[in-house]
Amino acid sequence: MTTSTRVHNFCAGPCTLPVSVLEEVRDELLDFDGTGMSIIEASHRAPAYDAVHMNALADFRSLASVPDEFSILFLQGGASLQFAQVPMNLLADGETAGYVNSGTWGKKAIGDARKVAPVYEAWTDAEGAFDRMPGTDEIEVRDGSRYLHLTSNETIGGIRFPELPSANVPLVTDMSSDFLSRPIDWDVHDLVYGGAQKNLGPAGLAVVIVRKDRLSSHGRNLTSYLDYATHDSNNSMANTPPMFAIYVMGKVLRWMHTEGGLATFEQRAAQRASILYGAIDESDGWYVCPVDEASRSHMNIVFRLPDEDLEERFVAEAADAGMVNLKGHRSVGGIRASVYNALRVDSVRMLVDFMDGFRSAHG
Amino acid sequence: MTTSTRVHNFCAGPCTLPVSVLEEVRDELLDFDGTGMSIIEASHRAPAYDAVHMNALADFRSLASVPDEFSILFLQGGASLQFAQVPMNLLADGETAGYVNSGTWGKKAIGDARKVAPVYEAWTDAEGAFDRMPGTDEIEVRDGSRYLHLTSNETIGGIRFPELPSANVPLVTDMSSDFLSRPIDWDVHDLVYGGAQKNLGPAGLAVVIVRKDRLSSHGRNLTSYLDYATHDSNNSMANTPPMFAIYVMGKVLRWMHTEGGLATFEQRAAQRASILYGAIDESDGWYVCPVDEASRSHMNIVFRLPDEDLEERFVAEAADAGMVNLKGHRSVGGIRASVYNALRVDSVRMLVDFMDGFRSAHG
Repeated sequence: MTTSTRVHNFCAGPCTLPVSVLEEVRDELLDFDGTGMSIIEASHRAPAYDAVHMNALADFRSLASVPDEFSILFLQGGASLQFAQVPMNLLADGETAGYVNSGTWGKKAIGDARKVAPVYEAWTDAEGAFDRMPGTDEIEVRDGSRYLHLTSNETIGGIRFPELPSANVPLVTDMSSDFLSRPIDWDVHDLVYGGAQKNLGPAGLAVVIVRKDRLSSHGRNLTSYLDYATHDSNNSMANTPPMFAIYVMGKVLRWMHTEGGLATFEQRAAQRASILYGAIDESDGWYVCPVDEASRSHMNIVFRLPDEDLEERFVAEAADAGMVNLKGHRSVGGIRASVYNALRVDSVRMLVDFMDGFRSAHG
Repeated sequence: MTTSTRVHNFCAGPCTLPVSVLEEVRDELLDFDGTGMSIIEASHRAPAYDAVHMNALADFRSLASVPDEFSILFLQGGASLQFAQVPMNLLADGETAGYVNSGTWGKKAIGDARKVAPVYEAWTDAEGAFDRMPGTDEIEVRDGSRYLHLTSNETIGGIRFPELPSANVPLVTDMSSDFLSRPIDWDVHDLVYGGAQKNLGPAGLAVVIVRKDRLSSHGRNLTSYLDYATHDSNNSMANTPPMFAIYVMGKVLRWMHTEGGLATFEQRAAQRASILYGAIDESDGWYVCPVDEASRSHMNIVFRLPDEDLEERFVAEAADAGMVNLKGHRSVGGIRASVYNALRVDSVRMLVDFMDGFRSAHG
């Protein structure tokens, strides 16, 4: 397809991917690397796939500067399964951890963890607005906690930690919705995880990066798939991995390297956010971002219009103009522009132009 | 690519898929259904994906004649995660079930189940050859068992149940390696499951078909993803599903409908098996199938040559002739020709011709 027929996709996930990656996938679809078959027909034990898999692991490690003390696992079940698997693997019987309840995803994480271990809420938004992240001094980490669980970016609420809070215990962070959009401080982490389907590739793949000396420290009688050690000792090929998703993510990681690595993507995210929040803030209150300024997400930018009828028209007219998936999550309403790694700054400029025009027409 | 450059892929899984399906996937890769984006960039809440998802559910139901009393779930983690999830969901605290240990996969299933519940081995091959399936009268199902677990086809051993044994308890069957290659008797089952990456599509998707009145009967405090009820009540979209794998499987299911449904594929499997076992049996003992005749798999056809050097040459020369992935599993050696639903009978004829020529040259 031509670039002109391609929509500008502001979806909160799965999300837009680089066109060059999609073109490569298309061109290789019937004959992968001269094997005479598709990558989706290849054996996961075949040399051609093995190279894809090991290169994806290596590129993830170099891109995110993951130290040797951490193992990188390619798993299935999304971040949702990790809500269970993290406490199963990191907490021994009777051990506890603190969870920051910063919104929809933080709440789901603690909900599942409570079924596994006696974890506790280290912070919640007492006012119930979930429009900001807590500061370090607001988070109560109890003595003896094994870790503090954070959600670095709340996709629905549109908030992020500009910097992760400090704690006197290791951090465990769900980075699903801002994965590899900025550097990660490994010194403070025991584990980082996220679904790949936002910044990194197709749905059906979760990446878990875990400190090796925490593997098998749980003493639990975990079943094979649920035990990180199974995957660690088999380079995430203990069973058939989600090969296509890994293959596409591998291409995205290559592309990210070529574009300049995490520093580039952090800078581009800041630029996209600056343009969009700028347009909101300069609209004389016609567009309103309901999020505390210091906690504004660089990935999911939420805002409201004067009323819901206008919001509905905004979404419909934007779609007609080729900008899709701008409707806010059904639980909160409003508008949400998700601006992940592969979304071009041009798309954001186009959205801002549309916003100006829409306000002139209806304001 | 032209048909002539396409290899004949005898891989045990992931496996060959219909070329027409691959061509459709390629042609739609940059613009799915006029949406201006790839299916791997689409929201799982978007109407275009929703149609794909619901059609795949409906086509699976009609193709396999799944009764309304059963729910069809699209999950991640492969059959490997099901080895844990099945007993978690079907057994209440203290309940038991029998497991037939028919080889590598049966053994893995019981290994994980033992970590979840006090299950027992209802049969094992006392001689350790694992070259045959047991008859009904050999399987000991204890009173009070909740189910009997079977592996309908052992991919590595190359054996299958020609007909599933009878039991006075419901059956639970792992059908990963002969999924939808023959009709399924739902009356005797509480649950059927399998990875999709052999007969049905790409890796990264498992299908579980479970009797609805068994959902939530476990009384366990299961975490969200591990509880079948979570997926049942959300049409397998409680979290982001493995969309690409479901999309491709949907196309394979459509193709299977067009080709005539399960009766066609059962007949084709019998034809492929008949040609290959015929060639083995008519080789005057030069090719030997180590499997009990009544248990011979119609999907994974294993055989030996006079010595390992010849086996190595056989695999290499077959690959040179465009027939790949014929090496037996490393744990058992020999040759394995996996002949799944999408493998054309012509490919089997070509292999048999090659076998005749190889024997003439080396016999």
